[in-house]
Amino acid sequence: MYRTHNCGELRISEVGINVTLSGWVAKTRLLGSMAFVDIRDRYGITQLAFNEETNNEMLSKAENLGREFVIQVEGRVSERSSKNQNIGTGEIEIIVSNLIILNESKTPPFTIETETDGGDDLRMQYRYLDLRRDVVRKNLELRHRLAQLVRNYLSGESFLEVETPVLIKSTPEGARDFVVPSRLNPGSWYALPQSPQTFKQLLMVSGFDRYFQIVKCFRDEDLRADRQPEFTQIDCEMSFVDQEDVLNLFEGMMRHLFKEIKGIELPEFPRMTYADAMKFYGNDKPDTRFGMKFVALKGEDIDVVSGKGFGVFDSVDSVVSIKVPGGATYTRKQIDALVDWVKRPQVGASGLIWVKKDDQGNLKSSVDKFYSADDLKMWDNALELNNGDMGLLMAGAYGKVHKQMSELRLHIGAELGLRKPDEFSPLWVVNFPLLEFDEDQNRYHAMHHPFTSPLKEHRDLLMSNPADVNANAYDMVINGVEIGGGSIRIHDQDLQAKMFELLGFSEEEAKAQFGFLMNAFQYGAPPHGGIALGFDRLCSLMGGSESIRDFIAFPKNNSGRDIMIDAPAPLTKDQLEDLELN
Amino acid sequence: MYRTHNCGELRISEVGINVTLSGWVAKTRLLGSMAFVDIRDRYGITQLAFNEETNNEMLSKAENLGREFVIQVEGRVSERSSKNQNIGTGEIEIIVSNLIILNESKTPPFTIETETDGGDDLRMQYRYLDLRRDVVRKNLELRHRLAQLVRNYLSGESFLEVETPVLIKSTPEGARDFVVPSRLNPGSWYALPQSPQTFKQLLMVSGFDRYFQIVKCFRDEDLRADRQPEFTQIDCEMSFVDQEDVLNLFEGMMRHLFKEIKGIELPEFPRMTYADAMKFYGNDKPDTRFGMKFVALKGEDIDVVSGKGFGVFDSVDSVVSIKVPGGATYTRKQIDALVDWVKRPQVGASGLIWVKKDDQGNLKSSVDKFYSADDLKMWDNALELNNGDMGLLMAGAYGKVHKQMSELRLHIGAELGLRKPDEFSPLWVVNFPLLEFDEDQNRYHAMHHPFTSPLKEHRDLLMSNPADVNANAYDMVINGVEIGGGSIRIHDQDLQAKMFELLGFSEEEAKAQFGFLMNAFQYGAPPHGGIALGFDRLCSLMGGSESIRDFIAFPKNNSGRDIMIDAPAPLTKDQLEDLELN
Repeated sequence: MYRTHNCGELRISEVGINVTLSGWVAKTRLLGSMAFVDIRDRYGITQLAFNEETNNEMLSKAENLGREFVIQVEGRVSERSSKNQNIGTGEIEIIVSNLIILNESKTPPFTIETETDGGDDLRMQYRYLDLRRDVVRKNLELRHRLAQLVRNYLSGESFLEVETPVLIKSTPEGARDFVVPSRLNPGSWYALPQSPQTFKQLLMVSGFDRYFQIVKCFRDEDLRADRQPEFTQIDCEMSFVDQEDVLNLFEGMMRHLFKEIKGIELPEFPRMTYADAMKFYGNDKPDTRFGMKFVALKGEDIDVVSGKGFGVFDSVDSVVSIKVPGGATYTRKQIDALVDWVKRPQVGASGLIWVKKDDQGNLKSSVDKFYSADDLKMWDNALELNNGDMGLLMAGAYGKVHKQMSELRLHIGAELGLRKPDEFSPLWVVNFPLLEFDEDQNRYHAMHHPFTSPLKEHRDLLMSNPADVNANAYDMVINGVEIGGGSIRIHDQDLQAKMFELLGFSEEEAKAQFGFLMNAFQYGAPPHGGIALGFDRLCSLMGGSESIRDFIAFPKNNSGRDIMIDAPAPLTKDQLEDLELN
Repeated sequence: MYRTHNCGELRISEVGINVTLSGWVAKTRLLGSMAFVDIRDRYGITQLAFNEETNNEMLSKAENLGREFVIQVEGRVSERSSKNQNIGTGEIEIIVSNLIILNESKTPPFTIETETDGGDDLRMQYRYLDLRRDVVRKNLELRHRLAQLVRNYLSGESFLEVETPVLIKSTPEGARDFVVPSRLNPGSWYALPQSPQTFKQLLMVSGFDRYFQIVKCFRDEDLRADRQPEFTQIDCEMSFVDQEDVLNLFEGMMRHLFKEIKGIELPEFPRMTYADAMKFYGNDKPDTRFGMKFVALKGEDIDVVSGKGFGVFDSVDSVVSIKVPGGATYTRKQIDALVDWVKRPQVGASGLIWVKKDDQGNLKSSVDKFYSADDLKMWDNALELNNGDMGLLMAGAYGKVHKQMSELRLHIGAELGLRKPDEFSPLWVVNFPLLEFDEDQNRYHAMHHPFTSPLKEHRDLLMSNPADVNANAYDMVINGVEIGGGSIRIHDQDLQAKMFELLGFSEEEAKAQFGFLMNAFQYGAPPHGGIALGFDRLCSLMGGSESIRDFIAFPKNNSGRDIMIDAPAPLTKDQLEDLELN
């Protein structure tokens, strides 16, 4: 038997008993006639004591231990003279009577500590050592806990976990599929699923009523930072539901997860329309931990900036502003830095106008030569500045300037410390547009996917004004992060056919790609809808990190490579011949 | 809201309340002035009552309902006059006040009943309708429950669920990999994992201590009946364990599952060596629900058949026998049928000798002209026949005749009703050979896999007598079905290198394929071992079916095709060009 206890569980109450521990050498302190060795495993660290007087042989063995050696020790639990209150085992140590080296270790290429000296690439190459670090392992322990909580919650809500196939059929619509040649059917290929969308809808046709799965999905995209070619989804679908049923259930689940994992009672999730999210935050996933909502100074219902000779404001269709609380103290240098920031190509704004209200309530702006005190008063009426605040204004086309202002808002929110990592502000964004127009291809794309139903009250617009049709689609957003999204699906075969037509599918194409689903809809499809939550993203949100990679055991790098195992790699000639690909 | 209750939950205590139900039309009985409609969902069936007097409009609507229409009804719960005690809702019915048709249905291609009129192919093509059948859905409900029980059990035992990657590197050793071309790295390929073996071992190097995952695995094999190209494993690994630790833990899990799912207390799992399994059952996964163990009449330690002029027995190295309880009553015709059965090419035996003991204890055999009563007495001493029993003998080379006798034993066991589907006889088969010799390639293969450790006491034989080395490997067998297997792994880099050498890997090959694992072993690999259980197989065993396909939502056929979605299929020209495979 390798151990009677793990390295994290011995306490003062166990003093006097004989134990066996196994683990890794975390630290060695040699003091001549004595030595102390910290032995570490997943559960904790225990101090081992060696003493010339009691056991000289063991002491000299201990002196030869290297970092990360795997050892097994027998000994007696003893009370420590100098206690360490920072760790659970800090009141005891083991007086070692026997020490066995189970395996030696070369000196690791970086230190196995919370603050390591290893760079990103080195740690990815030796991921198995990186995972040995407490801070990394804890991320994966969180992931483990979340997965169990999600499954138990959904099981308790009568969801059935069903495994959908991984080797499926390619559907060229949307993102690129990873594909797999079929040796038994030469010239034919499987595809890896981008999501189990059609299968979960089929399960609803099958009467499964409530389905879930924590499932790997695959997308062969040109990788950006923090995108992974394989990622994990909490995938769900429900029958006989409308939008509120889905929203309430998954709001309940999320509240449960935050309670269990973080001890936080989340507030009720407000519903915000897509239109409002764009209007007030310039963003379909607004970070609502802080205010600074957009205020229009020139737009559909207001214009308090035109006709004063300031050409920039005269010529655009939108001038939008935000209020920076306490911003009147911003120096010229600080403001110049903001102007530079928004002019970077990543944001692409042409400039930034400010208006400050000092402690006496006097208004001053960077365009005072165009705007009188009375003019500025009109701005202030809209912006509702308090004494000491600053307003920032940007001008441009509606969509573009809202996007730019969103970047600025998030930037300033971060600068002011308003985006607190330990605060969580969830909401549902609803009423997304059904379609978006692709200028390049001169056709509509489904904003969510082709199975999303239009709002009932917009159904008549479908053929006449497709761009105006909103969908029964929703996103769950927390702290400006899109945690998931879903929709109520089309369950009517005629409407589904119409939708494919609108998206430019010929009848043959629709049949070839989704014929099985359209067939299924002929045999009593129930009303249904669902959601998919990004599990990697949820883990990183709850773990307080920006990077999903920190929550994946063996992630790939930005070129889609696993540099630890050196994949992908060439195949052998035999393999290619088997596949008739030579 | 589509429903206030599901179709399986209303009881006599709800009489008088108004409810809304949604579901499928399972059955319609039209009786002129009245009609009864059974509405079905996943949870049950509820009877709907329509009556000319109370609501003539609804009655005529009901009369036009077709099978599998999706409907929503409102009505009052009422006590039935003629109760149905077979179903939970059998004491009530709904007096319908409103009926909405949510979706129509074409007549399904087969009946949605436990006993359906649909053939296999048709049901696979319309799998979404097949899944609507109670009996099929219940299989997947069992699978759901098993998955949750397994995860909760293992989580409770401190196992961490870790997702290992699906896009990995091909290792040409062993079965064929499915492979995935990398668009971003032209000429390079990913492979889909046949198992997460190396990753779980790396997790042990990482100090994760206990790992599990219910995970899809992939094998591009020529398909046999009931093999699937993608299948699911309960994959586990533990550190600081020896064989007994692993066996006890998973025996405990299996006992828990049988208790929870079937209410059965499994007995302790006996351990049987591979050598004994082959000797007494001719099979490394013996069905131990019944006896009929092999008795050697000619072999290493015994020969009670040679030298009597019966050439067949004289010329072979093995004569093996089984005792058929009560078999003395077998007729000539029955025995001839057995002889024909063993002579079929699937078994390939040359013949079958019998010896019967009648009610008076007299012995008689089919080779009486060669063997005297005293000779037969010697057979009987070994076989220990009771009055009324029959012994069956087969002769040949040890391995071959044991395999043939195993087939016969299972056949007769089934004929005699000894392989009861509601009885479960588990065991561990242990001490497998480490290697098997491949005559074609004139080299050794790892019987389990190259990471399996030899028994400590056999380690010295590794280079001198590799064929004699047994492994720290074990299989869990229940009712003659291999539910899973595993081993204690090699954690020593020198031994692992020696093992690769023995298996004919050059140093370069070993490094190219498993370099990352061998590297990892340099940095403090703990002793570790694990197991992988076939989840599809476990479901089918517990569900009382021989076919794993019944427990997979969307299985593939024997050519690896999903005939419902018509996959695999050709790619488009654009897709092939993207992959530079044109």
